[in-house]
This record gives sequence, C-alpha cells and structure tokens, in this order.
Amino acid sequence: MGLIRSWVESANAAECSFPLNNLPCGVFDDGGGARMGIAIGDMVLEVGAVDHGLDPALFAAPEWNAVMAAGPEVWAALRARLTALLSDEAHRAAVAPHLHPLAGLRLLMPFRVSEFTDFYAGRHHAENVGTMFRGAENALPPNWLSIPIGYNGRASSVVVSGTPVRRPWGQVKAPDEDLPRFAPSARFDLELELGAVIGQPSEGMVSVGRADAMIFGYVLLNDWSARDIQAWEYQPLGPFQAKATATSISPWIVTAAALQPFRVSTPERARPLLPYLHEPGPMLYDIALEVGLTPENGAETVIARTSYREMYYSAAQQLAHHTSSGCPMRVGDLLGSGTISGPDRDSRGSLLELSWGGKEPLRLADGQGRSFLEDGDTVTLRGAAQGAGYRIGFGECRGTVLPALRL
Amino acid sequence: MGLIRSWVESANAAECSFPLNNLPCGVFDDGGGARMGIAIGDMVLEVGAVDHGLDPALFAAPEWNAVMAAGPEVWAALRARLTALLSDEAHRAAVAPHLHPLAGLRLLMPFRVSEFTDFYAGRHHAENVGTMFRGAENALPPNWLSIPIGYNGRASSVVVSGTPVRRPWGQVKAPDEDLPRFAPSARFDLELELGAVIGQPSEGMVSVGRADAMIFGYVLLNDWSARDIQAWEYQPLGPFQAKATATSISPWIVTAAALQPFRVSTPERARPLLPYLHEPGPMLYDIALEVGLTPENGAETVIARTSYREMYYSAAQQLAHHTSSGCPMRVGDLLGSGTISGPDRDSRGSLLELSWGGKEPLRLADGQGRSFLEDGDTVTLRGAAQGAGYRIGFGECRGTVLPALRL
Repeated sequence: MGLIRSWVESANAAECSFPLNNLPCGVFDDGGGARMGIAIGDMVLEVGAVDHGLDPALFAAPEWNAVMAAGPEVWAALRARLTALLSDEAHRAAVAPHLHPLAGLRLLMPFRVSEFTDFYAGRHHAENVGTMFRGAENALPPNWLSIPIGYNGRASSVVVSGTPVRRPWGQVKAPDEDLPRFAPSARFDLELELGAVIGQPSEGMVSVGRADAMIFGYVLLNDWSARDIQAWEYQPLGPFQAKATATSISPWIVTAAALQPFRVSTPERARPLLPYLHEPGPMLYDIALEVGLTPENGAETVIARTSYREMYYSAAQQLAHHTSSGCPMRVGDLLGSGTISGPDRDSRGSLLELSWGGKEPLRLADGQGRSFLEDGDTVTLRGAAQGAGYRIGFGECRGTVLPALRL
Repeated sequence: MGLIRSWVESANAAECSFPLNNLPCGVFDDGGGARMGIAIGDMVLEVGAVDHGLDPALFAAPEWNAVMAAGPEVWAALRARLTALLSDEAHRAAVAPHLHPLAGLRLLMPFRVSEFTDFYAGRHHAENVGTMFRGAENALPPNWLSIPIGYNGRASSVVVSGTPVRRPWGQVKAPDEDLPRFAPSARFDLELELGAVIGQPSEGMVSVGRADAMIFGYVLLNDWSARDIQAWEYQPLGPFQAKATATSISPWIVTAAALQPFRVSTPERARPLLPYLHEPGPMLYDIALEVGLTPENGAETVIARTSYREMYYSAAQQLAHHTSSGCPMRVGDLLGSGTISGPDRDSRGSLLELSWGGKEPLRLADGQGRSFLEDGDTVTLRGAAQGAGYRIGFGECRGTVLPALRL
C-alpha cells in the first residue's frame, strides 16, 4: 500500500509524519478549550466537529477514552470515515473550517491514563544493565527468557510531551557510604520506550491474539529514571520513587490500524516460551526510533538510533502476561515496552547504557561530555515507520530537566 | 472521651462496632440502587437523603471520592452534622425513615480506587520473610531501616469484602526444576494489612505532618499473594502477577477523625531516620486485628491476632516517602500498610509466616492442617480500636477462594 492522497496538500509530502495513512489521535487547545483532534499534514482536524457519523457523546470529553471504550468496530468506522472526508475533494468545503494549523496549538494528554505498567522486555537493555550491575555471566536474570518482566508504575506521573520535568530528590547511598542521604538525584536518566495504549477492558486471562486486538495504538514514552535512587531502593520490591517523578508520552496515539503494514515478528527464542505467550502472528512493528539530547542554549545531538523491532517481547505478549493471574485491564491502561536498545553502542536507549554507568561519558556535538542528564537538558524522542512513499510518524516526545527544588 | 449516645439504641451497646463515635463511610444497595451510607449500630443511614447541610453534588455518585475531594473542613462539618442528627432525639422523625437494617444490604466498594500502592513496613513480617528467603543474618534488606519500602500495585484488582477470589494461574518454578511451568498457584496466601485512603491530592513533596492530614480514613485490606508465582517473578523488579489477582478491602472507611483517641507512636528507631521522615506526633493507631480462616463447610479458626501499632512506619511516613520524588497523589489513592505481624508466632499476618513457608503447617480447629489456602477457604479479617465503653469497629474483610479455572 502506498500513500493515500489527501486534499490537505501538506499531508502528501514523502517526509510528512502525518499523511492520511496515519490519522493519529490527540487532544489540542487553540485557546478555545481542549478538544479531540486528528493530525493531518501540518493541520489538526477537530474531529468532533465534522460529520463523523458516530455518537457525539464519544467526543464530549477532551480525551480518547470514550472512543477507545466503544470498541474496534467504532475505531474502524471512524478511520474509514475520516479517510473519506480527507481524501474526497467533495468534503473539503465542509471539513476545512475545522482544520487548525498544528504549529499554533497546545497539545494535551491524548487520553486519561487508568494505570501504567512498565516492562523490561528489551534483551540488549537487560543484558547491558545486568552486566553493569551483576557481571556478564549473570547479566540476564534466570526468569528473563521466560517472563516479560514488568512492574506497576504510577499513572498520576504520566505527562504529555513538553511538560518540564523537575530533577527529583530521594534517598541515595554510595557503596562507600554507611548511611543514605536525602539529595537531588545525580544520575537522572531517560529511557526510550514505546507505550501501548489499551483500548478495551478484560476480565480474567486473555490470549496473546486477543491482547493484540485490545491495543488501540502506540505512543513514544520516556520513562525518566533516577538511577542513584533506584540502586538504593529497588531491593527487594523493585523500583518505586526512582520512576515516579514523571513519565512523558508523545501527544499523538498512532493507531494499531495505521501500523498494520509494519508488523514484524519477535526475534527467535533463546528458550521456548510457555504456550500462553505464543504469538499467532507478527506482533512487533518496525518503527525507527531516535533520541536527541539538547543542552541548555546548545544544539541537539542525536545520541541513539534504534528500532522497536529490537524488542524480545511484543506488547501483546506483555498484555497477555499481565492478565495471566486474572488481573483486570481497563480502557486507558498504558504499557511501557521497556527500554529499547539495539545491539550497537549507538543504539542504546538510556544514558546508563550509553555512558556505561558514567564510566564512558558521551561526547555531545558541542564537545561537552554527558554521563547523566544535567539541568536544562532537553530530551527529544522521535519515531516513524517508513512505508513506500510515505511515513507513519509519531511526532516528538520532549521534556526539559529543571533543577531540583531547594528544600 | 466515652461513648456518644445515639437514639439508634443498637449503637450504644459496648460491643457494637458502629457507635456514634465511629460513623464509617460506605456504599450500600438495598435493591433500589447504590447509595452512600454511614453505619450506625445495626443500621445504615442513607447520608445523601438527610439534611446534611452540604452540596448535594457530593452525594450524587455512589462513592466517597467527591466528599474526600471536598477537603477536611467538609469532612469535619459532615461528622458534626451527623453526630447532631443521630444523637438529638429531635431529629429522629426526620432521619429514621432513611435508616436501613444493615443485615439486609449489599455493601459495595466505598470509593473508587485511583491507584494502589502496597508497602512492606512491618518489621516482624520483613524479618520473618527475610529469614526464610535469605537467612537470619540477611533478614532485613540494607535499606529497610531507612526507607518505608513500597511498590505500586494494581487498582483494578481491588475488590470489596465478600467478592470471591479465584485461585490464579501463573509461571512457577521449583528450585529443582530447570524450566518454569504454567500452573495454578499452589502457595496462595493472605496478607493482613490496613489500607490508608488518601482524601486529598498533592503535587510535589509533602511533609509527614501534611501527609497525615491527607488521609481520610482506613480500611482492612487483604493483599492476596501467590507465593510460588512471586518467588519466580520478583527478581529484579518486584512482585507483579503474584499480587494482581485481587486485593480485598472492608466495605467501611473508618475515618481518621474517629481514630484520633487511639493514636500511638511508631516504635523506637533502630537507625535514625532522615529528617523528611520525622513524625511531628504519634501517627500510628492502636487497632486490634485478627484473621479468621474457615474451611469449606467447616468452623472458623482465628489463626492470628495482632495490632496495627506493630508497624515500623506509619501511613503518614509512607505517604510522605511516596511523594519524595515529586510523585503526584490523587484523591482515592489506596496505600496498603504491608503485612502486620506481631512478635509472636500466633501474631503473624500471613500463612507464609504462620506455617513457616509450609514447613510447620497450622492446625485448624477441626484438626486439619494448613500451609497455604485451599479451595473453599474463607479468610476474614477483623479490626477494632477499643475505647472506654465503646469500640471503633472496622467490620469484616472477607473473601472465599474459588478453584482455579480449567484452561
């Protein structure tokens, strides 16, 4: 399938992130209040204002939760209708008044996060971190090749791209210190992830195939992490305050429907999976990802390039595992993939890995070194799936580190 | 302070759980729909139907979230008004029609849980579990005396007392097995806890004193736990599916206001705490707790008796720590205390401890042994603070184990 042409001309450019093939779901405010929008070219369509053919109640609140709850048939009907409205010149006169230039809009949280779960499902990341913390021979925990390891995060801390992130305080203790101190994190980090947005609820255990169908779409996700707080707190019950300061997501949910042409299989299994984790088909996506780091008053350096296809477990496998104990899932649940690192040094999705725990600081474009984030640094995640003559872009997930508060 | 007498005569009995001093907050359904209620004696008052003097919108949805969000002045005004209505005979004629016999009601979730966090803040429990898993010399993790260790749980799995709990499936692996199996949990357990219900939101770090004032009230909480699933999954990121099947809470929120006479201090510190965890006053409560276990078609055995005063960290300290990284808190957040075990063998709050990992099975009243829960077992938690001539009861938190589904 090639580009679907739109009468919104900017959407037809090969390098455009938001062609008619994409139709990502967001929430915008042009000063007149928050409304649901769809990105098309360099414009945003106020979707509730056009002849969408669906229950207007789905567009009453500025969040995509009601549409998600309405189910896959509604998702498909909306996509088909928007495709018709934006491709057929006949609708131009009725639709064009509801297009707003993207550049002038404030983009808000696209959905209300019910609960947030973060995984640890990238093998290169797990091996890198494991090697640093436990040595190369114990890099992968014994359960890692059997379980898509996850932990519950904090939904209240999920923020939309552009929200500044305040460097956290926390308990830290260096190996040579007897007692912990309460101090601003000195090893504040980013994590490049993709977030799966759960669009349908479940009770009881669901299969991988059913789990895949429950996913409405995907967002870029930066799971800000305080490595020094994490190192002291995480035994025995896992990360807690180290991950609770903020998790940033991109403002556009790229739907699973838009990503269908880019499905790829998870890698070959190093150990056979238990049957409840078997995938009935390819459930990863080939999405190119990159991380930019921009110092205050400086130029951006792209510090990592990788792909979502590097994951060892798909979001569908993660979700199926999430329900394996009977855990109910809800519309608006958000599942972080885990840090997406590739096999190479410049494909690592965190500064912890890129600077090898601070031992090998990165060199930025302007010559300064970086082990962990400094105040004023801006982190920008980008992602796109490349089709023939078009691309499905995610836009940006951006956040700037503010100095810790003075206590 | 002694008993506050009510014209609801059953509320004046010394053994009554719900005297006028208590006024716990719940949601009931008598067949006519879910409404907010206050327990008084053997009756429940439909609080939205009486002359409460507050905004009726606070009582529009069958959940206490709106009242909690309205803040401490509203909490105090409602308590004062209900005390007047139920103590002064002059109000009897107007109020009595809105009293429903408790025995005939279905009790529902008293509030909508925003997010659920579970702690590990009982020292006896942590030492018992640590001794079993890591040996007596490494029983307490190095951070335990400095951090109220917590992890995020799953709000979607919180259910009200009386909801049956299905034995979960999950990945398990015995030490002598090479690979995990997917099987029903064979070591399904209870955890006796108290849950703190957060009634006010916060942004940024809050002090222990402010945290204490954010707590609307407390519930009994059973954090059902699959020990075999937990043992295989919990390294390195903590418990996940082992704790996601269900967490049961009692149907009545006993308010912090009702518990004021029972404040006690946390125990002496084995290691000085960092200043952000210092308590400005006594922030635990002396609440007697017990666990009953009833086999299918059998009689109950009380298998543990302990007190909430055994905790090493108060809910206020836990909440202050929870915000230390800047994590926002929301109305309806639920914080589990962690398992409340006392120093003695019969004061342990889990079967894991009571049966010492299955090595020393309990003997029930009818002679059968118990290491972990069997299908058909009913677990009942009870709690009460004992005043002079009255008691502040929590009611019951009850759940029956159903057999695992056949796959």
